Amino acid sequence: MGSICNKAIGVFFEYDTPRIVHIRSKKVGVINRLLQLIIIGYVIGYAIVYKKGYQEVDAVQSAVTTKLKGVVYVNQSQYPDITTSVWDVAEYVVPPQENNAFFVITNLIETPKQTIGICSEDPKVIGSNCTTSSQCPAGKVLPAGNGLLTGECNTTAGLCLVRAWCPVENGALKPPDPPALLGSKDFTVFIKNNIQFPKFKVKRRNLPDNASDEFFQTCNYGSHSIDCPILRLETIVREAGENYSAMAKEVDMRNILDFFNDSMLAKCRFKLNHPEDQYCPIFILNDIISLTGSNYKEMALSGGVIEIQIQWNCNLDLSVTECVPKYIFRRLDSADYKISKGYNFRYAKYYKENDTEYRTLFKAFGIKFILSVTGEAGKFNFEPFLINVGSGIGLLGIATVLCDIAVLYFLKARHLYKDKKYLQVVGDDAYKQLDGQNDEDKSE
Amino acid sequence: MGSICNKAIGVFFEYDTPRIVHIRSKKVGVINRLLQLIIIGYVIGYAIVYKKGYQEVDAVQSAVTTKLKGVVYVNQSQYPDITTSVWDVAEYVVPPQENNAFFVITNLIETPKQTIGICSEDPKVIGSNCTTSSQCPAGKVLPAGNGLLTGECNTTAGLCLVRAWCPVENGALKPPDPPALLGSKDFTVFIKNNIQFPKFKVKRRNLPDNASDEFFQTCNYGSHSIDCPILRLETIVREAGENYSAMAKEVDMRNILDFFNDSMLAKCRFKLNHPEDQYCPIFILNDIISLTGSNYKEMALSGGVIEIQIQWNCNLDLSVTECVPKYIFRRLDSADYKISKGYNFRYAKYYKENDTEYRTLFKAFGIKFILSVTGEAGKFNFEPFLINVGSGIGLLGIATVLCDIAVLYFLKARHLYKDKKYLQVVGDDAYKQLDGQNDEDKSE
Amino acid sequence: MGSICNKAIGVFFEYDTPRIVHIRSKKVGVINRLLQLIIIGYVIGYAIVYKKGYQEVDAVQSAVTTKLKGVVYVNQSQYPDITTSVWDVAEYVVPPQENNAFFVITNLIETPKQTIGICSEDPKVIGSNCTTSSQCPAGKVLPAGNGLLTGECNTTAGLCLVRAWCPVENGALKPPDPPALLGSKDFTVFIKNNIQFPKFKVKRRNLPDNASDEFFQTCNYGSHSIDCPILRLETIVREAGENYSAMAKEVDMRNILDFFNDSMLAKCRFKLNHPEDQYCPIFILNDIISLTGSNYKEMALSGGVIEIQIQWNCNLDLSVTECVPKYIFRRLDSADYKISKGYNFRYAKYYKENDTEYRTLFKAFGIKFILSVTGEAGKFNFEPFLINVGSGIGLLGIATVLCDIAVLYFLKARHLYKDKKYLQVVGDDAYKQLDGQNDEDKSE
Repeated sequence: MGSICNKAIGVFFEYDTPRIVHIRSKKVGVINRLLQLIIIGYVIGYAIVYKKGYQEVDAVQSAVTTKLKGVVYVNQSQYPDITTSVWDVAEYVVPPQENNAFFVITNLIETPKQTIGICSEDPKVIGSNCTTSSQCPAGKVLPAGNGLLTGECNTTAGLCLVRAWCPVENGALKPPDPPALLGSKDFTVFIKNNIQFPKFKVKRRNLPDNASDEFFQTCNYGSHSIDCPILRLETIVREAGENYSAMAKEVDMRNILDFFNDSMLAKCRFKLNHPEDQYCPIFILNDIISLTGSNYKEMALSGGVIEIQIQWNCNLDLSVTECVPKYIFRRLDSADYKISKGYNFRYAKYYKENDTEYRTLFKAFGIKFILSVTGEAGKFNFEPFLINVGSGIGLLGIATVLCDIAVLYFLKARHLYKDKKYLQVVGDDAYKQLDGQNDEDKSE
Repeated sequence: MGSICNKAIGVFFEYDTPRIVHIRSKKVGVINRLLQLIIIGYVIGYAIVYKKGYQEVDAVQSAVTTKLKGVVYVNQSQYPDITTSVWDVAEYVVPPQENNAFFVITNLIETPKQTIGICSEDPKVIGSNCTTSSQCPAGKVLPAGNGLLTGECNTTAGLCLVRAWCPVENGALKPPDPPALLGSKDFTVFIKNNIQFPKFKVKRRNLPDNASDEFFQTCNYGSHSIDCPILRLETIVREAGENYSAMAKEVDMRNILDFFNDSMLAKCRFKLNHPEDQYCPIFILNDIISLTGSNYKEMALSGGVIEIQIQWNCNLDLSVTECVPKYIFRRLDSADYKISKGYNFRYAKYYKENDTEYRTLFKAFGIKFILSVTGEAGKFNFEPFLINVGSGIGLLGIATVLCDIAVLYFLKARHLYKDKKYLQVVGDDAYKQLDGQNDEDKSE
Repeated sequence: MGSICNKAIGVFFEYDTPRIVHIRSKKVGVINRLLQLIIIGYVIGYAIVYKKGYQEVDAVQSAVTTKLKGVVYVNQSQYPDITTSVWDVAEYVVPPQENNAFFVITNLIETPKQTIGICSEDPKVIGSNCTTSSQCPAGKVLPAGNGLLTGECNTTAGLCLVRAWCPVENGALKPPDPPALLGSKDFTVFIKNNIQFPKFKVKRRNLPDNASDEFFQTCNYGSHSIDCPILRLETIVREAGENYSAMAKEVDMRNILDFFNDSMLAKCRFKLNHPEDQYCPIFILNDIISLTGSNYKEMALSGGVIEIQIQWNCNLDLSVTECVPKYIFRRLDSADYKISKGYNFRYAKYYKENDTEYRTLFKAFGIKFILSVTGEAGKFNFEPFLINVGSGIGLLGIATVLCDIAVLYFLKARHLYKDKKYLQVVGDDAYKQLDGQNDEDKSE
């Protein structure tokens, strides 16, 4: 029909729609509608609505800081080997700062007044026993040894001599029971967490905006009234039971961030699952341990590792005030382990007297708390929505395919349907037949 | 049509194409083409091209190290309570190392020569006031207290006696104003960041390869010439204004990593938004604080928390040299807070004299810098591309559905169209009619 | 056609299927089937099976702790400037704890007995040279300087006088060669890694459950038997070669976590790529460095940064016992750098004598190990599977489009095919022709 221009414009005035064979059949109709309903139900009900397939997601970005408070007194008569009797924050938090973690000493073995010299190796070190010097090859360091073998054997003690910080730590000593710093269970940690979902330009904090220092002070150690979110770790431990290898116990600590006020903080004390008592981002260590299903005293003995997970799963199609954190506590070390049960490390304090350096070695057992901020936010976005819709439409084609199979191969009237559905055209040599109209042509 | 074999082979020589009703109608044609253009425009223009739906993405994996430089002198006459007068890196970075973070002391309160003993509790501690001993129950630790109550009241002072590191810290003391280590604003931090996108086997660094130590030395403290990327935090603070609770001020610090040379580093000084002056990964602390919209002196008073985000968003379909980091600075603490404004922690230095241990307690106020490396890389991949294309084709079906509705229900000629579109076939009992051809059959 | 009710019910008893033009043509048939096979092959073979398009993925969440063991002796005669001769864990791990990282001192420069006072600046500091006092402006701190200029010049030494910790560190000193703590190459690090995939409720550890402390003790330093997974870093360095700027060498350290037993640990020593010798999560530092392709001695001289990546890529459709970690070691600093080669930082030990504070400054060179846990788990889920299927069905439409183009425009019989495929209907004014049947109508 004329020129290319006409054809091009013509394209805009044409509409192609497939010719449809409309079969009125109860059997096939019901199967067809059923299949379509299932597919549509899945796409809309499950993929789009339930699994939020209409949302774009963004992972949380976060920064956390912590601050501990608390003092414990270690009775010299009960613990004669521990030279310091008052342990405050500067004493029991070693190192004073860590990023996304903090450590609290709960028990310790002190080896005071060590100076570099030559002395007997610790009998618990494998290979330290000797009867002759040949059993102590000079220059070697025994596995888990304290120093360098000098090549001599202290035949009296039956132990190799080493060049080390002497006297060496006594490997036979078990950490004191009960734990020296068991009082640490009443310490509190104030966790401040700032997060953002950059794709959606949303920033949140796990703190309320209008409370004061004074209230946080009393809130920490307040009476057992019912409305404070301070985690009484003791309580939580008991309530969660003893099975720390089970799924972490979750505490839904919705910090009702936007209507928190001073007076609530003044009287508050956390109660598990209490709708109003979940406000303070101040946790008592005992409560944290209990929430993992462990017992503080048992854990304080040889130490352990706790993961504090702050989970921000937010649906930003709702009000942003609904975007609150959830705290999950999980114990990571396991009492099942014979290997390296608990958690400990060594550090030292250094002194000088008359130009000689000496040190006190601390084998510090304690609880390492590792902070982990996770989560994602979802918000409506056309893209994932339309991908799901487009795929859903593609899936509807399956209903047609299956019903076609039923109609063309299994129903009684299948020959009729085949006739009606297919217009047979003979192929490559068809053009030869263009002149002579034949049966197939007319049967269309 | 003989055996199965023939049928199987026959499948390869057949082609099924839907029969199309070709309607030449201006109204419907325009609607149809418009809908198709919108859908195709969305799929190609938005989902695929603009949102890079043709790319596979990979999140960044990163490691960061930092190194601070700087010295500040604290005048004893101005700050009589601070016993150390020269503060260098070993003094003000506590602890000496943190992973993905560093802390700089900007102000402090010293309590020197503390030894363990019995003394009056701090009057600022709630519950420390007393007139009789019964008000100081032995064994208890007051909230935010310094030690264990002995059970006695110092009636002269009107304060409970505690077993603690004595003398206790004076809770009434405010951090000195102006901040003792205000000079820290001129300190520099050298941030070294290694990243990789493992899926695409791409590794990048935020450092140029061919600069020398000497130039980084002069580059740090160079004159105010215009071409250095050292962040003059002082400048950035002013330029960003005072509103730190607003969206973080972004500095597009494209380290032009691959054509950086020594002489440029020698003279360089960062200027916000200057196309060439963004080279050094060396930041002056004052500049970082300013970039968040804060004032260094105000922040140094009680401390604070800054997040330094190194963002690597790379399009790996372009040259890998375009994959450069972007630095975003955000202040995390808030002056709105009455709670725990600023940032501080306590640590101590230990000494021994005549076998008695004593310590100097430091309440260190300062700025905690938390490093966060984020970002993702995208690269063309058939998978996401074809998923988008497939969904797009499915979406085109919507155009047909909508136009069919218009054609069959709203146009004048709808009855004709219905006739032409649908071939009516009566269902289950149709086979009975196979023998007798009827009208519906012929009307096809 | 009665009421709406009838119509609604009628919908369930109807089935619409497109009328198909069935062309028997070898050419088109083959092209069509080929295109369909390619598309189906891509969708099923590549997108779904190979790229696991049927799986939902979840990123790993992790917590890691480390513990070092080892002692090294520093010979005073070889290193007269180093005052401590025995270096154990409390000495060489500074700070004692870091989250997701640890640092080991391998070399150092000590500046003992520093006290605050006035002395000459270090000649290596740029600007420290002077002949007159005017060249030393009071109150200024030189770049990389040690203290505050007093305004006076020590004309004898030709250096500006500074108020600093005196004597200042000698900037001309190079770290000792060979490294003072070269013995650190035999230290071992025990890495404990807990991970979880929360979406699938799967928790894993990189440790076996049934080994004891004693075996880990001997396992560390055991003989060179073939079945232990302890990484002999010395070996790995050699085997990986010297090219640390190349792709990180991977060690497939499958901890066969669920059938590990004590006796295997007792005798074990890691051998690269040995199917059974990959059990201990205990690494010898030398082995780690070697695995990156570096030489320990060279790295220990000025220090460096190593990334230890623990990669958990798990297919949870298989047994969960197959979910094991893979360790990848990568060196992050580069010897290509003239800038800040290696890794070092400064810290100090403090002492008091007669009420004067003095300190020993340590410039510690060493290896910073940064731990990075990455990975994701996949598990079958209908959603991603059906999205791929739906998109695939959409893609099949492309085959039809392409074959239609071939059939309608390129084959000899194209006019016949066009006739058969399209039922021409004239549009808007068609209703006028409803009365008069015309040629176009009849040609259907």
